Amino acid sequence: MFAVTILGNNSAVPAFNRHPTSQVVTLDGSNYLVDCGEGTQIQMINYKIRRSKISHVFISHLHGDHYFGLIGLINSFSLVSHQPELHVFGPAPLKEIIELQLKVADTKLCYPLHIHHITEPAILIDDEKLTVKCFRTNHRIECYGFSFQEKKSLRKLLPEKAIAFEIPAVFYDRLKAGEDYTRKDGTLIKNDSVTVAATPGKKYAFCADTKYDESIIPHIAGADMIYHETTYLDNLRERAESRFHSTSKQAAELAKKAGVKKLLIGHFSSKYDTLEEFELEAREVFENSELALEGVCYEV
Amino acid sequence: MFAVTILGNNSAVPAFNRHPTSQVVTLDGSNYLVDCGEGTQIQMINYKIRRSKISHVFISHLHGDHYFGLIGLINSFSLVSHQPELHVFGPAPLKEIIELQLKVADTKLCYPLHIHHITEPAILIDDEKLTVKCFRTNHRIECYGFSFQEKKSLRKLLPEKAIAFEIPAVFYDRLKAGEDYTRKDGTLIKNDSVTVAATPGKKYAFCADTKYDESIIPHIAGADMIYHETTYLDNLRERAESRFHSTSKQAAELAKKAGVKKLLIGHFSSKYDTLEEFELEAREVFENSELALEGVCYEV
Repeated sequence: MFAVTILGNNSAVPAFNRHPTSQVVTLDGSNYLVDCGEGTQIQMINYKIRRSKISHVFISHLHGDHYFGLIGLINSFSLVSHQPELHVFGPAPLKEIIELQLKVADTKLCYPLHIHHITEPAILIDDEKLTVKCFRTNHRIECYGFSFQEKKSLRKLLPEKAIAFEIPAVFYDRLKAGEDYTRKDGTLIKNDSVTVAATPGKKYAFCADTKYDESIIPHIAGADMIYHETTYLDNLRERAESRFHSTSKQAAELAKKAGVKKLLIGHFSSKYDTLEEFELEAREVFENSELALEGVCYEV
Repeated sequence: MFAVTILGNNSAVPAFNRHPTSQVVTLDGSNYLVDCGEGTQIQMINYKIRRSKISHVFISHLHGDHYFGLIGLINSFSLVSHQPELHVFGPAPLKEIIELQLKVADTKLCYPLHIHHITEPAILIDDEKLTVKCFRTNHRIECYGFSFQEKKSLRKLLPEKAIAFEIPAVFYDRLKAGEDYTRKDGTLIKNDSVTVAATPGKKYAFCADTKYDESIIPHIAGADMIYHETTYLDNLRERAESRFHSTSKQAAELAKKAGVKKLLIGHFSSKYDTLEEFELEAREVFENSELALEGVCYEV
Protein backbone atom coordinates (compact mmCIF):
# COMPACT_ATOMS: atom_id res chain seq x y z
CA MET A 1 0.00 0.00 0.00
CA PHE A 2 1.09 3.56 -0.77
CA ALA A 3 -0.42 5.96 1.76
CA VAL A 4 0.13 9.04 3.91
CA THR A 5 -0.76 9.27 7.62
CA ILE A 6 -1.03 12.76 9.07
CA LEU A 7 0.59 13.24 12.51
CA GLY A 8 0.35 17.04 12.64
CA ASN A 9 -1.68 19.48 10.54
CA ASN A 10 -1.24 22.79 12.32
CA SER A 11 1.10 25.67 11.65
CA ALA A 12 3.51 27.41 14.03
CA VAL A 13 1.94 26.79 17.43
CA PRO A 14 0.03 23.75 18.76
CA ALA A 15 -3.65 24.61 19.24
CA PHE A 16 -7.11 23.00 19.42
CA ASN A 17 -5.44 19.62 19.83
CA ARG A 18 -3.74 20.08 16.45
CA HIS A 19 0.00 19.52 16.29
CA PRO A 20 2.85 20.95 14.22
CA THR A 21 3.68 19.43 10.85
CA SER A 22 4.57 15.78 10.46
CA GLN A 23 3.38 12.96 8.25
CA VAL A 24 4.39 9.41 7.44
CA VAL A 25 4.53 8.17 3.86
CA THR A 26 4.12 4.38 3.82
CA LEU A 27 5.05 2.23 0.85
CA ASP A 28 5.00 -1.57 1.04
CA GLY A 29 5.98 -1.73 4.70
CA SER A 30 8.58 1.04 4.69
CA ASN A 31 7.89 4.33 6.48
CA TYR A 32 9.28 7.68 5.38
CA LEU A 33 8.79 10.53 7.83
CA VAL A 34 8.18 13.98 6.34
CA ASP A 35 8.83 16.83 8.77
CA CYS A 36 8.96 16.27 12.49
CA GLY A 37 7.42 19.04 14.62
CA GLU A 38 7.57 18.95 18.40
CA GLY A 39 5.68 15.96 19.80
CA THR A 40 5.94 13.82 16.66
CA GLN A 41 7.24 10.84 18.64
CA ILE A 42 4.20 11.08 20.91
CA GLN A 43 1.88 11.28 17.91
CA MET A 44 3.59 8.19 16.51
CA ILE A 45 2.72 6.34 19.73
CA ASN A 46 -0.85 7.68 19.59
CA TYR A 47 -1.34 6.46 16.02
CA LYS A 48 0.65 3.24 16.34
CA ILE A 49 3.33 4.10 13.77
CA ARG A 50 6.19 1.68 14.40
CA ARG A 51 9.36 3.67 15.01
CA SER A 52 11.56 0.79 13.91
CA LYS A 53 10.03 0.91 10.42
CA ILE A 54 11.29 4.43 9.82
CA SER A 55 14.55 4.50 7.94
CA HIS A 56 14.37 7.95 6.32
CA VAL A 57 13.33 11.39 7.55
CA PHE A 58 12.88 14.42 5.28
CA ILE A 59 12.92 17.90 6.83
CA SER A 60 11.52 20.62 4.56
CA HIS A 61 12.98 23.63 6.36
CA LEU A 62 14.29 24.85 9.69
CA HIS A 63 11.27 26.62 11.11
CA GLY A 64 10.69 24.92 14.43
CA ASP A 65 7.19 23.65 13.74
CA HIS A 66 8.74 21.39 11.08
CA TYR A 67 11.71 19.91 12.97
CA PHE A 68 11.81 20.57 16.75
CA GLY A 69 10.69 16.96 17.34
CA LEU A 70 13.57 15.45 15.37
CA ILE A 71 16.22 15.46 18.09
CA GLY A 72 13.83 13.71 20.49
CA LEU A 73 13.04 11.08 17.90
CA ILE A 74 16.72 10.47 17.14
CA ASN A 75 17.34 10.06 20.86
CA SER A 76 14.40 7.73 21.44
CA PHE A 77 15.38 5.57 18.49
CA SER A 78 18.61 4.94 20.33
CA LEU A 79 16.92 4.14 23.63
CA VAL A 80 14.01 1.95 22.65
CA SER A 81 14.01 0.72 19.07
CA HIS A 82 16.34 -1.60 17.27
CA GLN A 83 17.26 0.81 14.54
CA PRO A 84 19.59 -0.50 11.83
CA GLU A 85 20.38 3.04 10.69
CA LEU A 86 18.67 6.36 10.03
CA HIS A 87 19.01 8.74 7.10
CA VAL A 88 17.92 12.33 7.62
CA PHE A 89 17.66 14.79 4.72
CA GLY A 90 17.40 18.51 5.43
CA PRO A 91 18.87 21.97 4.89
CA ALA A 92 22.54 22.33 5.73
CA PRO A 93 22.48 23.72 9.32
CA LEU A 94 20.44 20.74 10.56
CA LYS A 95 23.55 18.60 10.93
CA GLU A 96 25.26 21.14 13.19
CA ILE A 97 22.14 21.53 15.38
CA ILE A 98 21.66 17.80 15.89
CA GLU A 99 25.33 17.04 16.43
CA LEU A 100 25.69 19.87 18.96
CA GLN A 101 22.78 18.54 21.00
CA LEU A 102 24.13 14.98 20.94
CA LYS A 103 27.57 16.23 21.97
CA VAL A 104 26.50 18.27 25.00
CA ALA A 105 24.43 15.33 26.27
CA ASP A 106 27.41 13.01 25.80
CA THR A 107 25.08 10.78 23.77
CA LYS A 108 26.46 7.89 21.74
CA LEU A 109 23.70 6.64 19.46
CA CYS A 110 23.46 2.88 19.16
CA TYR A 111 22.87 3.09 15.39
CA PRO A 112 24.50 4.95 12.50
CA LEU A 113 22.89 8.34 11.88
CA HIS A 114 23.47 9.90 8.46
CA ILE A 115 22.43 13.53 8.08
CA HIS A 116 22.38 14.55 4.44
CA HIS A 117 22.50 18.15 3.34
CA ILE A 118 19.98 18.78 0.55
CA THR A 119 20.40 21.59 -1.92
CA GLU A 120 18.84 22.27 -5.28
CA PRO A 121 16.38 19.93 -7.05
CA ALA A 122 17.93 16.54 -6.51
CA ILE A 123 17.21 12.83 -6.34
CA LEU A 124 17.40 11.80 -2.67
CA ILE A 125 16.46 8.14 -2.98
CA ASP A 126 16.33 5.93 -6.05
CA ASP A 127 15.92 2.26 -5.21
CA GLU A 128 13.79 -0.61 -6.48
CA LYS A 129 10.66 0.66 -4.72
CA LEU A 130 10.62 4.40 -5.27
CA THR A 131 12.30 7.62 -6.27
CA VAL A 132 12.26 10.56 -3.86
CA LYS A 133 13.14 13.98 -5.22
CA CYS A 134 13.24 17.38 -3.60
CA PHE A 135 12.35 20.76 -5.08
CA ARG A 136 12.57 24.33 -3.81
CA THR A 137 9.40 26.05 -2.63
CA ASN A 138 8.89 29.77 -2.14
CA HIS A 139 9.15 30.41 1.60
CA ARG A 140 10.80 32.95 3.90
CA ILE A 141 13.81 30.69 4.42
CA GLU A 142 15.32 27.86 2.34
CA CYS A 143 12.55 25.30 2.00
CA TYR A 144 12.00 22.07 0.04
CA GLY A 145 9.07 19.99 -1.10
CA PHE A 146 9.41 16.25 -1.69
CA SER A 147 7.95 14.00 -4.38
CA PHE A 148 7.56 10.24 -3.93
CA GLN A 149 7.33 8.29 -7.19
CA GLU A 150 6.43 4.66 -6.69
CA LYS A 151 8.15 2.15 -9.02
CA LYS A 152 6.25 -0.80 -10.37
CA SER A 153 8.97 -2.87 -11.92
CA LEU A 154 7.10 -6.18 -11.82
CA ARG A 155 4.65 -7.23 -14.55
CA LYS A 156 1.10 -8.05 -13.55
CA LEU A 157 0.33 -11.79 -13.53
CA LEU A 158 -2.88 -13.08 -15.18
CA PRO A 159 -3.55 -16.01 -12.83
CA GLU A 160 -6.23 -17.69 -14.94
CA LYS A 161 -3.84 -17.77 -17.91
CA ALA A 162 -0.97 -19.13 -15.80
CA ILE A 163 -3.26 -21.88 -14.50
CA ALA A 164 -4.49 -22.72 -18.01
CA PHE A 165 -0.86 -23.14 -19.15
CA GLU A 166 -0.22 -25.32 -16.07
CA ILE A 167 2.63 -23.15 -14.80
CA PRO A 168 3.47 -24.00 -11.16
CA ALA A 169 2.79 -21.21 -8.66
CA VAL A 170 6.39 -21.36 -7.46
CA PHE A 171 7.39 -19.82 -10.82
CA TYR A 172 5.00 -16.86 -10.59
CA ASP A 173 7.60 -14.45 -9.16
CA ARG A 174 9.84 -15.15 -12.15
CA LEU A 175 6.91 -14.54 -14.50
CA LYS A 176 6.34 -11.16 -12.85
CA ALA A 177 10.02 -10.43 -13.38
CA GLY A 178 9.52 -11.04 -17.12
CA GLU A 179 10.83 -14.58 -17.68
CA ASP A 180 9.35 -17.03 -20.17
CA TYR A 181 8.42 -20.54 -18.96
CA THR A 182 9.49 -23.81 -20.54
CA ARG A 183 7.31 -26.80 -19.81
CA LYS A 184 8.72 -30.28 -19.19
CA ASP A 185 7.71 -31.29 -22.74
CA GLY A 186 9.83 -28.42 -24.08
CA THR A 187 6.94 -26.10 -24.97
CA LEU A 188 7.86 -22.44 -24.49
CA ILE A 189 5.23 -20.22 -22.88
CA LYS A 190 6.08 -16.63 -23.77
CA ASN A 191 5.87 -14.26 -20.82
CA ASP A 192 3.37 -11.93 -22.48
CA SER A 193 0.92 -14.83 -22.78
CA VAL A 194 0.48 -14.87 -18.98
CA THR A 195 1.35 -11.33 -17.81
CA VAL A 196 0.68 -7.75 -18.81
CA ALA A 197 2.97 -4.74 -18.42
CA ALA A 198 3.39 -3.23 -14.97
CA THR A 199 0.90 -0.49 -14.08
CA PRO A 200 2.65 2.84 -13.72
CA GLY A 201 3.55 3.64 -10.13
CA LYS A 202 1.71 6.31 -8.22
CA LYS A 203 3.07 9.67 -7.20
CA TYR A 204 2.67 11.73 -4.03
CA ALA A 205 4.11 15.21 -3.46
CA PHE A 206 4.49 17.15 -0.21
CA CYS A 207 4.66 20.84 -1.10
CA ALA A 208 5.97 22.08 2.30
CA ASP A 209 5.53 25.72 3.31
CA THR A 210 5.20 28.04 0.36
CA LYS A 211 3.46 31.04 -1.06
CA TYR A 212 1.45 30.44 -4.24
CA ASP A 213 4.08 29.71 -6.85
CA GLU A 214 3.50 27.96 -10.17
CA SER A 215 7.18 27.17 -10.50
CA ILE A 216 6.64 24.02 -8.43
CA ILE A 217 4.14 22.64 -10.99
CA PRO A 218 6.72 20.69 -13.02
CA HIS A 219 7.61 18.74 -9.87
CA ILE A 220 4.06 17.79 -8.95
CA ALA A 221 2.27 17.70 -12.32
CA GLY A 222 -0.06 14.74 -12.72
CA ALA A 223 0.56 13.43 -9.19
CA ASP A 224 -2.06 11.08 -7.76
CA MET A 225 -2.10 13.12 -4.56
CA ILE A 226 -0.40 16.24 -3.26
CA TYR A 227 -0.33 17.91 0.13
CA HIS A 228 -0.33 21.70 -0.11
CA GLU A 229 -0.33 24.12 2.78
CA THR A 230 -3.34 26.36 3.45
CA THR A 231 -2.35 28.44 6.42
CA TYR A 232 -5.19 30.92 5.84
CA LEU A 233 -8.56 31.26 4.20
CA ASP A 234 -8.63 33.37 1.08
CA ASN A 235 -9.90 36.53 2.78
CA LEU A 236 -6.41 36.74 4.32
CA ARG A 237 -4.62 36.37 0.99
CA GLU A 238 -2.44 39.41 1.63
CA ARG A 239 -1.34 38.15 5.00
CA ALA A 240 -0.56 34.76 3.44
CA GLU A 241 1.48 36.46 0.73
CA SER A 242 3.45 38.60 3.17
CA ARG A 243 4.27 35.58 5.36
CA PHE A 244 5.17 33.32 2.45
CA HIS A 245 2.12 31.12 3.00
CA SER A 246 -0.89 30.12 0.89
CA THR A 247 -4.66 30.21 1.16
CA SER A 248 -7.00 27.32 0.62
CA LYS A 249 -8.16 28.72 -2.68
CA GLN A 250 -4.60 29.17 -3.89
CA ALA A 251 -3.72 25.57 -3.01
CA ALA A 252 -6.74 24.41 -5.00
CA GLU A 253 -5.83 26.62 -7.97
CA LEU A 254 -2.35 25.15 -8.00
CA ALA A 255 -3.68 21.57 -7.76
CA LYS A 256 -5.98 22.28 -10.71
CA LYS A 257 -3.23 23.81 -12.85
CA ALA A 258 -0.88 20.94 -12.03
CA GLY A 259 -3.50 18.39 -13.10
CA VAL A 260 -3.20 16.33 -9.92
CA LYS A 261 -5.88 13.83 -8.97
CA LYS A 262 -6.32 14.70 -5.31
CA LEU A 263 -5.40 17.57 -2.97
CA LEU A 264 -4.80 17.28 0.77
CA ILE A 265 -4.73 20.59 2.65
CA GLY A 266 -3.12 21.34 6.00
CA HIS A 267 -0.81 23.62 8.03
CA PHE A 268 -3.77 25.55 9.39
CA SER A 269 -3.18 28.73 11.33
CA SER A 270 -3.91 28.58 15.07
CA LYS A 271 -6.36 31.44 14.59
CA TYR A 272 -8.92 28.94 13.24
CA ASP A 273 -10.64 26.69 15.78
CA THR A 274 -12.62 24.83 13.10
CA LEU A 275 -11.55 23.72 9.64
CA GLU A 276 -14.67 23.15 7.53
CA GLU A 277 -14.27 26.45 5.70
CA PHE A 278 -10.90 25.41 4.35
CA GLU A 279 -12.37 22.38 2.64
CA LEU A 280 -15.37 24.26 1.27
CA GLU A 281 -13.17 26.98 -0.14
CA ALA A 282 -10.78 24.55 -1.80
CA ARG A 283 -13.60 22.45 -3.28
CA GLU A 284 -15.10 25.46 -5.01
CA VAL A 285 -11.98 25.48 -7.18
CA PHE A 286 -10.87 21.86 -7.11
CA GLU A 287 -13.50 19.25 -6.21
CA ASN A 288 -11.23 16.47 -5.00
CA SER A 289 -9.83 18.44 -2.05
CA GLU A 290 -9.78 17.06 1.46
CA LEU A 291 -8.65 18.23 4.90
CA ALA A 292 -5.51 16.48 6.14
CA LEU A 293 -6.74 15.27 9.54
CA GLU A 294 -4.45 13.94 12.24
CA GLY A 295 -4.45 10.19 12.64
CA VAL A 296 -6.09 9.64 9.25
CA CYS A 297 -4.37 7.50 6.63
CA TYR A 298 -4.93 8.70 3.03
CA GLU A 299 -4.27 6.23 0.25
CA VAL A 300 -2.37 7.71 -2.68
CA MET B 1 -0.20 30.00 47.21
CA PHE B 2 3.11 28.15 46.92
CA ALA B 3 2.64 24.98 44.87
CA VAL B 4 4.11 22.69 42.22
CA THR B 5 2.20 21.36 39.19
CA ILE B 6 3.68 18.34 37.46
CA LEU B 7 3.67 18.49 33.63
CA GLY B 8 5.87 15.46 33.00
CA ASN B 9 6.96 12.65 35.34
CA ASN B 10 8.66 10.17 33.03
CA SER B 11 12.30 9.61 32.24
CA ALA B 12 14.05 9.48 28.85
CA VAL B 13 11.25 8.41 26.51
CA PRO B 14 7.52 9.27 26.58
CA ALA B 15 5.46 6.18 27.47
CA PHE B 16 2.11 5.15 28.94
CA ASN B 17 0.87 8.69 28.45
CA ARG B 18 3.63 9.96 30.73
CA HIS B 19 5.78 12.80 29.48
CA PRO B 20 9.39 13.88 29.97
CA THR B 21 10.30 16.08 32.92
CA SER B 22 8.71 19.46 33.47
CA GLN B 23 7.01 21.15 36.38
CA VAL B 24 5.71 24.59 37.27
CA VAL B 25 6.45 26.18 40.63
CA THR B 26 3.78 28.76 41.44
CA LEU B 27 4.20 31.43 44.06
CA ASP B 28 1.66 34.22 44.50
CA GLY B 29 0.72 34.39 40.82
CA SER B 30 4.21 33.98 39.37
CA ASN B 31 5.13 30.80 37.52
CA TYR B 32 8.63 29.35 37.44
CA LEU B 33 9.16 26.51 34.98
CA VAL B 34 11.57 23.77 36.03
CA ASP B 35 12.85 21.66 33.13
CA CYS B 36 11.08 21.57 29.81
CA GLY B 37 11.00 18.19 28.08
CA GLU B 38 9.51 17.78 24.60
CA GLY B 39 5.80 18.58 24.57
CA THR B 40 5.87 20.84 27.64
CA GLN B 41 4.02 23.61 25.80
CA ILE B 42 1.26 21.12 24.92
CA GLN B 43 1.08 19.95 28.54
CA MET B 44 0.77 23.60 29.58
CA ILE B 45 -2.26 23.92 27.32
CA ASN B 46 -3.70 20.65 28.68
CA TYR B 47 -3.36 21.81 32.28
CA LYS B 48 -4.25 25.46 31.71
CA ILE B 49 -0.91 26.91 32.80
CA ARG B 50 -0.83 30.45 31.47
CA ARG B 51 2.25 30.91 29.33
CA SER B 52 2.28 34.64 29.87
CA LYS B 53 2.75 34.13 33.62
CA ILE B 54 6.09 32.37 33.11
CA SER B 55 9.01 34.71 33.50
CA HIS B 56 11.75 32.27 34.50
CA VAL B 57 12.80 28.82 33.28
CA PHE B 58 15.35 26.62 35.03
CA ILE B 59 16.99 23.79 33.09
CA SER B 60 18.73 21.19 35.26
CA HIS B 61 20.89 19.59 32.59
CA LEU B 62 21.19 18.99 28.87
CA HIS B 63 19.78 15.51 28.50
CA GLY B 64 16.98 15.88 26.01
CA ASP B 65 14.15 14.71 28.24
CA HIS B 66 14.78 17.82 30.36
CA TYR B 67 15.03 20.53 27.70
CA PHE B 68 13.99 19.54 24.15
CA GLY B 69 10.71 21.44 24.61
CA LEU B 70 12.41 24.72 25.48
CA ILE B 71 13.08 25.99 21.95
CA GLY B 72 9.43 25.40 21.02
CA LEU B 73 8.26 27.27 24.09
CA ILE B 74 10.58 30.20 23.40
CA ASN B 75 9.24 30.32 19.85
CA SER B 76 5.59 30.10 20.87
CA PHE B 77 6.03 32.82 23.48
CA SER B 78 6.99 35.08 20.62
CA LEU B 79 4.04 34.08 18.44
CA VAL B 80 1.13 34.00 20.86
CA SER B 81 1.79 35.49 24.26
CA HIS B 82 2.54 38.99 25.32
CA GLN B 83 5.77 38.19 27.03
CA PRO B 84 7.54 41.10 28.74
CA GLU B 85 10.79 39.12 28.92
CA LEU B 86 12.06 35.64 29.68
CA HIS B 87 14.99 34.53 31.82
CA VAL B 88 16.37 31.05 31.23
CA PHE B 89 18.95 29.49 33.56
CA GLY B 90 20.87 26.41 32.45
CA PRO B 91 24.27 24.83 31.81
CA ALA B 92 26.58 26.79 29.53
CA PRO B 93 25.97 25.16 26.10
CA LEU B 94 22.24 25.90 26.27
CA LYS B 95 22.74 29.45 25.00
CA GLU B 96 24.59 28.28 21.88
CA ILE B 97 21.93 25.66 21.10
CA ILE B 98 19.02 28.07 21.40
CA GLU B 99 20.71 30.92 19.56
CA LEU B 100 21.76 28.64 16.69
CA GLN B 101 18.17 27.44 16.22
CA LEU B 102 16.80 30.98 16.29
CA LYS B 103 19.43 32.10 13.78
CA VAL B 104 18.84 29.41 11.16
CA ALA B 105 15.08 30.08 11.31
CA ASP B 106 15.73 33.80 10.91
CA THR B 107 13.58 34.31 14.02
CA LYS B 108 13.45 37.68 15.75
CA LEU B 109 11.75 37.19 19.10
CA CYS B 110 9.31 39.91 20.06
CA TYR B 111 10.56 39.97 23.68
CA PRO B 112 13.99 40.05 25.34
CA LEU B 113 15.36 36.58 26.02
CA HIS B 114 18.11 36.30 28.62
CA ILE B 115 19.90 32.97 28.80
CA HIS B 116 22.01 32.73 31.96
CA HIS B 117 24.81 30.27 32.32
CA ILE B 118 24.70 28.63 35.76
CA THR B 119 27.76 27.15 37.38
CA GLU B 120 28.55 26.19 40.95
CA PRO B 121 26.14 26.65 43.88
CA ALA B 122 24.75 30.11 43.29
CA ILE B 123 21.83 32.38 44.00
CA LEU B 124 19.83 32.72 40.79
CA ILE B 125 16.98 34.90 42.01
CA ASP B 126 16.72 36.95 45.16
CA ASP B 127 13.76 39.30 45.16
CA GLU B 128 11.04 40.32 47.60
CA LYS B 129 9.12 37.07 47.10
CA LEU B 130 11.70 34.33 47.02
CA THR B 131 15.27 33.14 46.73
CA VAL B 132 16.14 30.53 44.12
CA LYS B 133 19.45 28.73 44.45
CA CYS B 134 21.05 25.98 42.43
CA PHE B 135 23.23 23.13 43.61
CA ARG B 136 25.15 20.36 41.82
CA THR B 137 23.71 16.86 41.76
CA ASN B 138 25.57 13.66 40.94
CA HIS B 139 24.64 12.77 37.36
CA ARG B 140 26.42 11.56 34.22
CA ILE B 141 26.73 15.11 32.90
CA GLU B 142 26.74 18.52 34.60
CA CYS B 143 23.41 18.73 36.44
CA TYR B 144 21.77 21.11 38.92
CA GLY B 145 18.97 20.98 41.43
CA PHE B 146 17.05 24.09 42.42
CA SER B 147 15.73 25.26 45.78
CA PHE B 148 12.89 27.77 46.10
CA GLN B 149 12.80 29.59 49.45
CA GLU B 150 9.69 31.68 49.95
CA LYS B 151 10.17 35.01 51.75
CA LYS B 152 7.62 36.24 54.22
CA SER B 153 8.76 39.77 54.85
CA LEU B 154 5.43 41.10 56.07
CA ARG B 155 4.31 40.79 59.70
CA LYS B 156 1.04 39.03 60.40
CA LEU B 157 -1.81 41.40 61.31
CA LEU B 158 -4.05 40.60 64.30
CA PRO B 159 -7.30 42.07 62.93
CA GLU B 160 -9.25 41.97 66.21
CA LYS B 161 -6.48 43.97 67.91
CA ALA B 162 -6.30 46.51 65.08
CA ILE B 163 -10.07 46.99 65.29
CA ALA B 164 -9.95 47.36 69.08
CA PHE B 165 -7.33 50.13 68.71
CA GLU B 166 -9.56 51.74 66.04
CA ILE B 167 -6.81 51.72 63.41
CA PRO B 168 -8.30 52.36 59.95
CA ALA B 169 -8.05 49.46 57.50
CA VAL B 170 -6.25 51.68 54.99
CA PHE B 171 -3.25 51.61 57.35
CA TYR B 172 -3.08 47.80 57.61
CA ASP B 173 -0.45 47.39 54.88
CA ARG B 174 1.83 49.77 56.76
CA LEU B 175 1.25 47.78 59.97
CA LYS B 176 2.28 44.60 58.13
CA ALA B 177 5.40 46.42 57.01
CA GLY B 178 6.26 47.09 60.66
CA GLU B 179 5.16 50.71 61.23
CA ASP B 180 3.70 52.00 64.47
CA TYR B 181 0.39 53.92 64.33
CA THR B 182 -0.27 57.31 65.85
CA ARG B 183 -3.88 58.15 66.58
CA LYS B 184 -5.38 61.62 66.02
CA ASP B 185 -5.15 62.25 69.79
CA GLY B 186 -1.42 61.57 69.64
CA THR B 187 -1.53 58.12 71.25
CA LEU B 188 1.13 55.81 69.86
CA ILE B 189 0.09 52.23 69.10
CA LYS B 190 3.26 50.16 68.96
CA ASN B 191 3.38 47.79 66.00
CA ASP B 192 3.84 44.66 68.12
CA SER B 193 0.55 45.38 69.87
CA VAL B 194 -1.36 44.62 66.66
CA THR B 195 0.94 42.28 64.67
CA VAL B 196 3.14 39.27 65.21
CA ALA B 197 6.37 38.34 63.43
CA ALA B 198 6.12 36.95 59.90
CA THR B 199 5.82 33.19 59.69
CA PRO B 200 8.92 31.72 58.09
CA GLY B 201 8.54 31.15 54.36
CA LYS B 202 8.28 27.65 52.97
CA LYS B 203 10.92 25.83 50.97
CA TYR B 204 10.69 23.51 47.94
CA ALA B 205 13.62 21.74 46.30
CA PHE B 206 13.81 20.02 42.92
CA CYS B 207 16.65 17.49 43.07
CA ALA B 208 16.94 16.87 39.31
CA ASP B 209 18.57 13.70 37.99
CA THR B 210 21.04 12.21 40.43
CA LYS B 211 22.37 9.05 41.94
CA TYR B 212 21.97 8.71 45.72
CA ASP B 213 24.26 11.36 47.14
CA GLU B 214 24.11 12.83 50.63
CA SER B 215 26.13 15.83 49.57
CA ILE B 216 22.92 17.53 48.42
CA ILE B 217 21.43 17.35 51.93
CA PRO B 218 22.69 20.80 53.04
CA HIS B 219 20.76 22.34 50.11
CA ILE B 220 17.46 20.63 50.88
CA ALA B 221 17.58 20.07 54.65
CA GLY B 222 14.32 20.86 56.40
CA ALA B 223 12.47 21.70 53.19
CA ASP B 224 8.69 21.58 53.31
CA MET B 225 8.66 19.51 50.12
CA ILE B 226 11.26 18.05 47.78
CA TYR B 227 11.02 16.30 44.42
CA HIS B 228 13.55 13.50 44.05
CA GLU B 229 13.92 11.23 41.07
CA THR B 230 13.14 7.53 41.34
CA THR B 231 13.92 6.13 37.93
CA TYR B 232 13.89 2.53 39.18
CA LEU B 233 12.55 0.36 41.98
CA ASP B 234 15.12 -0.78 44.50
CA ASN B 235 15.62 -4.25 42.98
CA LEU B 236 17.42 -2.39 40.16
CA ARG B 237 19.70 -0.43 42.49
CA GLU B 238 22.83 -1.45 40.58
CA ARG B 239 21.37 -0.32 37.30
CA ALA B 240 20.35 2.97 38.93
CA GLU B 241 23.86 3.45 40.27
CA SER B 242 25.53 2.71 36.95
CA ARG B 243 23.25 5.15 35.11
CA PHE B 244 23.55 7.90 37.74
CA HIS B 245 19.92 7.51 38.80
CA SER B 246 18.16 6.66 42.08
CA THR B 247 15.66 4.13 43.32
CA SER B 248 12.47 4.88 45.21
CA LYS B 249 13.95 3.59 48.45
CA GLN B 250 17.05 5.73 48.03
CA ALA B 251 14.96 8.85 47.44
CA ALA B 252 13.05 8.10 50.63
CA GLU B 253 16.25 7.50 52.60
CA LEU B 254 17.59 10.85 51.46
CA ALA B 255 14.33 12.63 52.33
CA LYS B 256 14.47 11.09 55.81
CA LYS B 257 18.11 12.02 56.40
CA ALA B 258 17.48 15.57 55.16
CA GLY B 259 14.56 15.97 57.55
CA VAL B 260 12.17 17.23 54.90
CA LYS B 261 8.42 17.26 55.51
CA LYS B 262 7.23 15.72 52.24
CA LEU B 263 8.73 13.81 49.32
CA LEU B 264 7.43 13.82 45.75
CA ILE B 265 8.84 11.09 43.52
CA GLY B 266 9.02 11.03 39.74
CA HIS B 267 11.20 10.49 36.61
CA PHE B 268 9.94 6.93 36.26
CA SER B 269 11.58 4.62 33.76
CA SER B 270 9.52 3.68 30.71
CA LYS B 271 9.94 0.03 31.67
CA TYR B 272 7.20 0.49 34.31
CA ASP B 273 3.63 0.66 33.08
CA THR B 274 2.21 1.21 36.58
CA LEU B 275 3.58 3.27 39.45
CA GLU B 276 2.01 2.02 42.69
CA GLU B 277 5.12 0.07 43.68
CA PHE B 278 7.21 3.25 43.70
CA GLU B 279 4.98 4.85 46.31
CA LEU B 280 4.78 1.71 48.46
CA GLU B 281 8.53 1.29 48.43
CA ALA B 282 9.20 4.92 49.34
CA ARG B 283 6.60 4.91 52.14
CA GLU B 284 8.25 1.96 53.85
CA VAL B 285 11.17 4.28 54.54
CA PHE B 286 9.53 7.72 54.59
CA GLU B 287 5.80 7.83 55.25
CA ASN B 288 5.02 11.21 53.67
CA SER B 289 6.02 10.18 50.15
CA GLU B 290 3.76 10.69 47.15
CA LEU B 291 3.86 10.00 43.42
CA ALA B 292 4.29 13.14 41.30
CA LEU B 293 1.36 12.73 38.92
CA GLU B 294 0.92 14.78 35.76
CA GLY B 295 -1.66 17.52 36.00
CA VAL B 296 -1.72 17.42 39.80
CA CYS B 297 -0.91 20.54 41.82
CA TYR B 298 0.93 19.83 45.10
CA GLU B 299 0.89 22.55 47.73
CA VAL B 300 4.27 23.11 49.37
